[in-house]
Amino acid sequence: MMRKILLDEDEIPRRWYNILADLPGSLDPMLNPQTYEPTELPPFLFASELNRQEFSTDRWIDIPEEVLEVYRIWRPTPLYRAKKLEEALKTPAKIYYKWEGVSPPGSHKPNTAVAQAYYNMKEGIERLTTETGAGQWGSALAFATKLFDLECMVYMVRVSYDQKPYRRVLMEAWGAEVVPSPSNRTKTGQKYLEEDPDSPGSLGVAISEAVEDAATNDNTHYTLGSVLNHVILHQTIMGLEAKRQFEMIDTYPDAIYGCVGGGSNFSGGAFPFLGDKLRGERKELEVVACEPTACPTLTKGIYAYDFGDSVGLAPIVKMYTLGHDFIPPKIHAGGLRYHGDAPALCRLVNDGYIRAEAYHQTDVFEAAVLFARTEGFVIAPETAHALKGVVDEAIRCRESGEEKTIFFLNSGHGHFDLSSYAAYFEGKLVDYEYPAELVKRALENLPKVGV
Amino acid sequence: MMRKILLDEDEIPRRWYNILADLPGSLDPMLNPQTYEPTELPPFLFASELNRQEFSTDRWIDIPEEVLEVYRIWRPTPLYRAKKLEEALKTPAKIYYKWEGVSPPGSHKPNTAVAQAYYNMKEGIERLTTETGAGQWGSALAFATKLFDLECMVYMVRVSYDQKPYRRVLMEAWGAEVVPSPSNRTKTGQKYLEEDPDSPGSLGVAISEAVEDAATNDNTHYTLGSVLNHVILHQTIMGLEAKRQFEMIDTYPDAIYGCVGGGSNFSGGAFPFLGDKLRGERKELEVVACEPTACPTLTKGIYAYDFGDSVGLAPIVKMYTLGHDFIPPKIHAGGLRYHGDAPALCRLVNDGYIRAEAYHQTDVFEAAVLFARTEGFVIAPETAHALKGVVDEAIRCRESGEEKTIFFLNSGHGHFDLSSYAAYFEGKLVDYEYPAELVKRALENLPKVGV
Repeated sequence: MMRKILLDEDEIPRRWYNILADLPGSLDPMLNPQTYEPTELPPFLFASELNRQEFSTDRWIDIPEEVLEVYRIWRPTPLYRAKKLEEALKTPAKIYYKWEGVSPPGSHKPNTAVAQAYYNMKEGIERLTTETGAGQWGSALAFATKLFDLECMVYMVRVSYDQKPYRRVLMEAWGAEVVPSPSNRTKTGQKYLEEDPDSPGSLGVAISEAVEDAATNDNTHYTLGSVLNHVILHQTIMGLEAKRQFEMIDTYPDAIYGCVGGGSNFSGGAFPFLGDKLRGERKELEVVACEPTACPTLTKGIYAYDFGDSVGLAPIVKMYTLGHDFIPPKIHAGGLRYHGDAPALCRLVNDGYIRAEAYHQTDVFEAAVLFARTEGFVIAPETAHALKGVVDEAIRCRESGEEKTIFFLNSGHGHFDLSSYAAYFEGKLVDYEYPAELVKRALENLPKVGV
Repeated sequence: MMRKILLDEDEIPRRWYNILADLPGSLDPMLNPQTYEPTELPPFLFASELNRQEFSTDRWIDIPEEVLEVYRIWRPTPLYRAKKLEEALKTPAKIYYKWEGVSPPGSHKPNTAVAQAYYNMKEGIERLTTETGAGQWGSALAFATKLFDLECMVYMVRVSYDQKPYRRVLMEAWGAEVVPSPSNRTKTGQKYLEEDPDSPGSLGVAISEAVEDAATNDNTHYTLGSVLNHVILHQTIMGLEAKRQFEMIDTYPDAIYGCVGGGSNFSGGAFPFLGDKLRGERKELEVVACEPTACPTLTKGIYAYDFGDSVGLAPIVKMYTLGHDFIPPKIHAGGLRYHGDAPALCRLVNDGYIRAEAYHQTDVFEAAVLFARTEGFVIAPETAHALKGVVDEAIRCRESGEEKTIFFLNSGHGHFDLSSYAAYFEGKLVDYEYPAELVKRALENLPKVGV
């Protein structure tokens, strides 16, 4: 039996899919964080082509040949049939997964990092900045910038910088400059360091530093690894490849599962399929967004206008949110600790096209260990949230006898997350309940937008 | 331009290639470490099918379907054209590499671990033991045993156990039991712990513990990850796939480079090509074994009978050796710190079919960083020795104008070696000269075999 459905390099899709073309009605406008007026992406921070893509309603957007050439380092990625997992679960369901762990940085993140680096290079930008927490996005940007001869500046939250030295070294291996945030490089950083020279930093401060750096240095732009429309657009390469792979075996999934942090992995995998449903070409398709109980944006948040970042510098968008100053408990899936989600994804949840489920981290790691012991790959804790959803569904199928075809986004390996696996084995993982009181307070601070 | 030459799953070779069929004359016999008489592999330690393969002179040995089924998790592996590296080196040479980093444990090691686990399972064995230093082999065996429902017991040198907790957690994720060696589990371990409760351990002690465990427990066998003929046999899957991939582009390499620790990666990649030369089917083929200056077995050792292990428990074989009690300096390529090399490989070096080169580790890491910044992948320090040889050859081609086709074995990723990359970036890597005096003393302790 074939385990993998493979495409040749010349079968990589040559266009990204833009779901804005198929949404019922247009997205609510992005607003300026000071004036609350409709805005575009600030041109001193983003390449004009990325701004164009952010608001385009063209269904298809061509992938430049130079981007395809870099994609070919690891793309097309394999679509796997998880036969051993099915056997272990004694389920009649057929489980497939798209494996993005083969990319050099080890996740789906370079799908957009490469495109962003390319467009900035084309527009004469010589240096890109970003923030990183656990380091996945920073690694992807370091990898991508080096291949287009751009400099890369990563502000890494100090507590991660100290605790995750290997992610930092990985970025340095690709030539990026990595500094702990708060740093002396920016006025924001200096201010925080004056208040507390030992400040552990936060993602909010690191974002502010990366933005200030880009705004105040020549030929420098800022980059984001999730949430924005153009990021999701680039990620659709995954779903488009998967569609071709399913066509090769005359199959179409009945259900799609993905984990959601900011939404780029989930949307990139699911939107090309969801588009079929939005256009009325398919009727039945279950799409399930999997998130942590500790940061339950889609299952417990409200659908409202909120700041994209925790300090109120980023544009205001309509999304499910737990409040921009909500700080979730420190679960091991660091990539899923975001207060909001991508606007297009939120809209489709609100319209009933996507269902959301939340899981406790011990259950998530239990699924991850089962996966390692059946399918062989040790996957990232973020990714394992999608897997937990799949395992539950496969067990439901065992009980009902349904032979569903389940597809999930296996977004990355867990080679830099083994301390979290160790915590699981040692029984040290804490399951956080939904922090209702914290969320209630955070939701009181939403911007008062009269829309 | 295509970056990767891919095979379909049904193009995985169905037979391993055994170079013993094509060696000029037979290998010198393996000797019992006590009696110095010719011996087979001890049946209380090894499956009978592995013993049969160890001494078989059949050119082709069928790969069981159950082994192929597991291979399909990550095989066939891609053959890459390193176009970006060529451009950076401004060389007219064409550089190709076989990328084994896509396997779940991240190296070529599971090619034999899976086969060894399978044959042992077939013969009723329920538990396998082994030793591990840096953890590559232990990880591969943990992965393989779990897929055949065997228990796995890994004796991990205590200093590695303490310093490399993530490799240990990886093995545990696949269900292996990992104990620091010396341990209380064996008489050998107890003896060392009595002498020094804080003993850092050594590979020699760990081997003794793993062997004693297998010898004294029911349904338990011992496993080795390199050196032996059956190990190399299983690794030829790499070279056989590569031959098919080169055929797809009507190419045959002019030169093959691989790193050599015990010889399994190098031999597995090069032997299927070398066989063509041994049978007279090809005339020109340069084959280069790359090793560290600090442990220069092939470039500075002598060709003689010596113990396979450092304590004199393992069989005696004819090989290049630095003396079985030679302890090499602590270079970062831990997998290349072995005093001897696989007998068939040594024989081919002695007969002039293979050339050997030795490199300093700072030069090796310089090549590895160049590779990360051109081809994208961060590779293991062991592997980077082969790369260093390739870079030197490509530069020679730039000077001579030769358009050589160079093929190298890219045996694994460096995700668990980033502390070594950090040491390189911080200028902390030491280049050890050839330890002539130490080797001279070690060579005085060779077994006095009258052959």
